[in-house]
Amino acid sequence: MDRSNPGAVDRSIPAVAAGSDFLHLALEEAPLGGKSDWLARRIRAALADGRLPVGSRLPATRVLAGELGVSRGVVTEAYQRLIEDGHLAGRGRGGTVVVGAPAPAATAPARATVPPPHALFAPAPGVGVFDAVRAARARIDLSPGVPDLAAFPRAAWLRAERRAVGRLAASDLGYGDPRGAPALRLAVAHWIARNRGIRADPDELLIVSGTAQTLTLLGQVLYEDGVRAVAVEDPGSLGARQHLNHCRLDTPPVAVDSEGVRVDELRASGAAAVLLTPAHQFPTGVVLRGARRTELLHWAHDSGGLIVEDDYDAEHRYDRTPVPALRSVLAGRVCYAGSVSKLLAPALRIGWVLAPPKYRDVLVDAKRFADLGNAVLPQLALAQFMESGEMERQLRLLRRHHRRRRDAMIEAIRTHLPDATVHGTAAGLHLTITFESKSGTDFADTGLAAAALARGVKVQPLSWHAQRPHRPGLVLGYAASTPTEIAEGVAAIGESLRQLL
Amino acid sequence: MDRSNPGAVDRSIPAVAAGSDFLHLALEEAPLGGKSDWLARRIRAALADGRLPVGSRLPATRVLAGELGVSRGVVTEAYQRLIEDGHLAGRGRGGTVVVGAPAPAATAPARATVPPPHALFAPAPGVGVFDAVRAARARIDLSPGVPDLAAFPRAAWLRAERRAVGRLAASDLGYGDPRGAPALRLAVAHWIARNRGIRADPDELLIVSGTAQTLTLLGQVLYEDGVRAVAVEDPGSLGARQHLNHCRLDTPPVAVDSEGVRVDELRASGAAAVLLTPAHQFPTGVVLRGARRTELLHWAHDSGGLIVEDDYDAEHRYDRTPVPALRSVLAGRVCYAGSVSKLLAPALRIGWVLAPPKYRDVLVDAKRFADLGNAVLPQLALAQFMESGEMERQLRLLRRHHRRRRDAMIEAIRTHLPDATVHGTAAGLHLTITFESKSGTDFADTGLAAAALARGVKVQPLSWHAQRPHRPGLVLGYAASTPTEIAEGVAAIGESLRQLL
Repeated sequence: MDRSNPGAVDRSIPAVAAGSDFLHLALEEAPLGGKSDWLARRIRAALADGRLPVGSRLPATRVLAGELGVSRGVVTEAYQRLIEDGHLAGRGRGGTVVVGAPAPAATAPARATVPPPHALFAPAPGVGVFDAVRAARARIDLSPGVPDLAAFPRAAWLRAERRAVGRLAASDLGYGDPRGAPALRLAVAHWIARNRGIRADPDELLIVSGTAQTLTLLGQVLYEDGVRAVAVEDPGSLGARQHLNHCRLDTPPVAVDSEGVRVDELRASGAAAVLLTPAHQFPTGVVLRGARRTELLHWAHDSGGLIVEDDYDAEHRYDRTPVPALRSVLAGRVCYAGSVSKLLAPALRIGWVLAPPKYRDVLVDAKRFADLGNAVLPQLALAQFMESGEMERQLRLLRRHHRRRRDAMIEAIRTHLPDATVHGTAAGLHLTITFESKSGTDFADTGLAAAALARGVKVQPLSWHAQRPHRPGLVLGYAASTPTEIAEGVAAIGESLRQLL
Repeated sequence: MDRSNPGAVDRSIPAVAAGSDFLHLALEEAPLGGKSDWLARRIRAALADGRLPVGSRLPATRVLAGELGVSRGVVTEAYQRLIEDGHLAGRGRGGTVVVGAPAPAATAPARATVPPPHALFAPAPGVGVFDAVRAARARIDLSPGVPDLAAFPRAAWLRAERRAVGRLAASDLGYGDPRGAPALRLAVAHWIARNRGIRADPDELLIVSGTAQTLTLLGQVLYEDGVRAVAVEDPGSLGARQHLNHCRLDTPPVAVDSEGVRVDELRASGAAAVLLTPAHQFPTGVVLRGARRTELLHWAHDSGGLIVEDDYDAEHRYDRTPVPALRSVLAGRVCYAGSVSKLLAPALRIGWVLAPPKYRDVLVDAKRFADLGNAVLPQLALAQFMESGEMERQLRLLRRHHRRRRDAMIEAIRTHLPDATVHGTAAGLHLTITFESKSGTDFADTGLAAAALARGVKVQPLSWHAQRPHRPGLVLGYAASTPTEIAEGVAAIGESLRQLL
């Protein structure tokens, strides 16, 4: 076909000078004998229109001269002129850098404009609310959901990465298996066998960018399969609900009581799937065990329903025996989701999902289309980190820190918020407090969160995580703050509360 | 509300032994005076049911004893018994590891079952085709799309990562800005200003997991905006088409000739958006410049159409002057996509997108729901790598390697495939060959690719990348193979061809 005859047959490769990508300089534009002039002019234009912003580094004179095919003196002279004009500065071995531009240039990203506290903590938060809260300045951050980040094992992680990089084959750096690196799938299979009682073949595991990605991929897959609603715990994670809603799934609420999710309500809802946090319910901290757990497994068996098990912080427990994952007893109806966000750091963006056979292949397809699979180097570093026993070491360290911090928070609440009821302290990275509704003392917990932020303390209102009316409360993370910060933060919440009532 | 009274008020924290997560051991189950027996039995059960697979490492005796609250001798004795049974082995400082399990256990992931060459190279490839080809064994891999991976700057990358980790604030390890780390957005703004002539504010940039993710996020956003088709070049990337189709978008073909995409066809198609590879068309290698480029910009201006500019290998050029990005001349109508896949390695999964204002915020929302943003450490390492000048150094190195490899491939084609027409050699990481249709010598290029794979050489048939009938051809990557491999590989293709005709 004529239209598909693309380009000339270029068998003879002329050895032309390659020119330079730097500013797309083309020497043929330079006037004879005026090359330095021309070069200085081109650089000045780039300074003026922002292509060379302040702080950027120019190519070494030797390199640029080589690429342009001119003598080094041509480049040196051009740079020198711009140095004299005050646009550039020579920094010795640091090279030549831009110090002053005659026009607006790319600058470091500005902080997002942050709304005032009362606008930030609106009763009906939008999809960008967690970003907005994160961008807000605060002295003390008691938001839930992160472990002690100062304890991130930087040196051990770099060691693991160095080892992984040293062992790489070149082909490992190409496009990889969308399911994840085999070494990490094996290490995760070992980890969940040892720590969560789950038996899985590495080929059944899919490595993802955290549980947020699990929810979105699974949401797509369930929607394609005709599912239109995934029941969720109430109260339950606002973020998880936002992810499912984004996939066009409804999220009917099912109440949580002191035994865990109300399976009778779940059964009555007729939902085909439910998202649960059985090991440590978010945000109440209730553990699903005993009769209620059996009841849930019966529901899955009888109705053919799917349980999405978000095992988000099961490894963090202080005063109780471990709870095996639901997946370990009912593999066929449980889609298990785990991650390192609460074990190491959310910024690693690594998680895993173990789906029932029905959804395994379509989830792999969804992951492939999402991003062709996770980045390889962090996967191999994590595999190394898990298989060497460093991960267990880190978990033991975190437990010590977190227990101390939890105790500090309970103590501070007893002192500064004596009327608060504390929930879910036997495990996890956060606790929840609620306030009894007394006549004349009703208040909106969003208002309390806003007042606390005005005093420099970040917390999450419980009502964000509840779909139905609920006593006012706060969700308070203790894992990432020191005991001193916790004491100060809770004291500030106490002052905010007294100011409100 | 009653049902929202979650759990008891646990103000008094009992100092119970925490037990161990390892195998979910609970000491209270152990008979008095028989703790070693009990422990050995529990470990043996875990060996039998696969929870402790061969190769896994047991906790140190001191650690496990501490966690269980037993004397160290109890653990040592249990381990010793299992060592005598041949299940465990003491490895000195390497700890105690599982060497033999009495039952099937989690094993290293098996290689995917790979179909035979003729089935692999079907005329209508499915969504898993690139994974299947990747999994196939071959002596020599001439698949297009990757740079010289052996030249990946391992030491410099680790240095950049070490620096980045050393400078991190603890809060950087939490959940971050879904747009990407500010330092990387700034470094990319500098990079595309210096190398692609594009002026962008870092706040306009979105960091993504490679261009594959850009296509999927943008596809979702365009679909939501009412777009139902994105025109694509023909021939053009099969992978890109699959990503758009996955987003329920049609991909009507627009022919490519020796000047680039046929803008008259694009105009006639009525498409509201078009995906282009203007700097080095995939797979033909044609550069869009001069009159055709002007014509395209007029189309965008007149029709209000969107140009998605996949700038996938613009930095790799050998015999021509650089071509500025379309984005640099028509920011309002161009969505620009770049990545490090061709500059460093696809396995890093880092790219960027610069969208027109209309789509900027909805793309950030899509990225947030996809995965809450890229992992932070590789972003900071890359920022360090770009701002220190290492990236330009790597690009110069790659150009030298790639040019040599390209020359070797052209030479080998001249020798072993004298009837082939070679296209697109002035730049890039691959070239394309086509075979003139002579009566009696027609053949399917999928058959040629299958025959080459049977001889141990992986290539891509051109027909995969064409929607409309096209002369048979192959797309041959040269960047990731040595000159010797290239010569051998092309010789094998020549033999395969003679066998077919």
